[in-house]
Amino acid sequence: MKKGNTLFFETQPKIRSYAAICGSKEKEGVIGSYADITLSDDMYGESTYEKAECKMLSNAVRLAVEKAALTDADIDVLLSGDLLNQIISASFAARDFQFPFLGLYSACSTMSEGMLLAAALIDGGFAENCVAATGSHFASAERQYRYPLELGCTRPPQSQWTVTGAGGCVISADKGDIRIVNATLGRVRDWGVTDVNNMGAAMAPAAADTLMRHFKDTDTLPEDYDMIITGDLGALGSRILKDLMWEKGYSISENHVDCGEIIYKVIEDEFQGGSGAGCSAVVMNSYVFTKMSAGLYKRVLFAATGALLSTVSSGQGESIPCISHAVQLEADL
Amino acid sequence: MKKGNTLFFETQPKIRSYAAICGSKEKEGVIGSYADITLSDDMYGESTYEKAECKMLSNAVRLAVEKAALTDADIDVLLSGDLLNQIISASFAARDFQFPFLGLYSACSTMSEGMLLAAALIDGGFAENCVAATGSHFASAERQYRYPLELGCTRPPQSQWTVTGAGGCVISADKGDIRIVNATLGRVRDWGVTDVNNMGAAMAPAAADTLMRHFKDTDTLPEDYDMIITGDLGALGSRILKDLMWEKGYSISENHVDCGEIIYKVIEDEFQGGSGAGCSAVVMNSYVFTKMSAGLYKRVLFAATGALLSTVSSGQGESIPCISHAVQLEADL
Repeated sequence: MKKGNTLFFETQPKIRSYAAICGSKEKEGVIGSYADITLSDDMYGESTYEKAECKMLSNAVRLAVEKAALTDADIDVLLSGDLLNQIISASFAARDFQFPFLGLYSACSTMSEGMLLAAALIDGGFAENCVAATGSHFASAERQYRYPLELGCTRPPQSQWTVTGAGGCVISADKGDIRIVNATLGRVRDWGVTDVNNMGAAMAPAAADTLMRHFKDTDTLPEDYDMIITGDLGALGSRILKDLMWEKGYSISENHVDCGEIIYKVIEDEFQGGSGAGCSAVVMNSYVFTKMSAGLYKRVLFAATGALLSTVSSGQGESIPCISHAVQLEADL
Repeated sequence: MKKGNTLFFETQPKIRSYAAICGSKEKEGVIGSYADITLSDDMYGESTYEKAECKMLSNAVRLAVEKAALTDADIDVLLSGDLLNQIISASFAARDFQFPFLGLYSACSTMSEGMLLAAALIDGGFAENCVAATGSHFASAERQYRYPLELGCTRPPQSQWTVTGAGGCVISADKGDIRIVNATLGRVRDWGVTDVNNMGAAMAPAAADTLMRHFKDTDTLPEDYDMIITGDLGALGSRILKDLMWEKGYSISENHVDCGEIIYKVIEDEFQGGSGAGCSAVVMNSYVFTKMSAGLYKRVLFAATGALLSTVSSGQGESIPCISHAVQLEADL
């Protein structure tokens, strides 16, 4: 069933299991202790950053399937994507498995796009168990989007730090404490921000647009949620989001939190906090789902946010189109 | 409903309208006269190849919606992706519209991935009208994947020519002559091909894998189809596919055709034929759907094929993982 831009899942597909792997810097943050695997060396035994990123993603998928007590034969499809050109982390990770693969690209909102589509496939009767997963790596993202680390470039204060990490969950028709109740499709919003170091400002309007459509379609208000968690707006982007929502009559200050804001302990070198597809993937598939399973949060609205730029589009003078897909989760406990 | 890796659509979502735009070289081919718009200048009035590619895609979407006699408000979601880094053609095209966007990446199999997901969303009751679209541009693909045109590099004989073109269709719950009956999810197959100029050889095993699973899941045989059309294997890749199928006991020679093989009139400069996400998008959304609507083909199996490599993965010594998603189409006439 749909209303407006929101899909309502009659059978409420469930988070059957979840797994997260994060890097050495993320390990020291608040979320670190909730991850299944934390790396002491971000190369993860591989020869390149890209291969390390792919290995994290592949192992997060593998671990989620194992924790669900399922085998590869039980998985109907992997829905995944990542930040690298031609989503090579996801495609090469999918090569490690015998089940089908649907490649997605939604930048840092890949986690919620994957969950949305997985829930739709299950609720539509087309699948029983899907894996939604994504990840990112600080060093591969810096090399591709900005400058190679070896150059030692200074980071401007409005910038965020791409999370080294991957997370994934098995979404299932029949088993799990956390249910996906509905999901709101994102629209591309572009308010003309051209500063590629200020992703938070670029993405905030997309998050605001999706949250407001979600509240309208579901006939809910911010206070109906225990937590409204955005993807990776960072500290500055979160402040802009709150302002944008407040202007339209929604106060989310009480229960809003941002994955990018909470993933690192002290915002110092990271300036505005974390970003990257791995940011919300790690936070959701470790801390949030653990706390939901434990009954701390009963109703969570997860709106990952993605900046759909490339170095070519920016080089050609384009501004940054952004998107945010939202998923409403509820825990039975 | 699902069986194996195939989704069966009870309500059989329909192709309500379709539109294709192609470049000057494609215009001269067999398909050219079936396209809605053919360019005399492949820059399409833009300052860069990338912007021209985006404009083609945006206009193909716009035209498909118009031909469906719908407005933007009637469209539930655009499912699109392309070959450029971070799918900027699709993301920037989506910026031109007010409806939601789901970003996909499946290289040259994006057209069938989009159709598959659109049909699942409609059949699941989550949407009434979706647009599935993709495109590519010879010059932007050469610059990104190989060499800038200005270098004048020689093309090896096993290479294909990236199609300049875009195509899209409105898939609808209620109206249209052509029905999407079922769809088979692709799996990533990698037989170790490392030659980035030989996409046909790399992709053929993925196409064979999907076709064989499709025949098994749907309990059909190649002769049950008026046409089995692959995405862009080209001449060499098509020969490999036929051999691989024949080895497993399936003879597809009688009714197999490849979008890459038929898009250009004389295979001369193009060597093995066309490729690129726009290849199958243009052929399907012009020639094939027109002929199906006219009753020439009643039952068509469309298996687009994608090579999931990047310049970085190849540069790091990786082989080429490939995928093929298949969609079974039937015409009422």
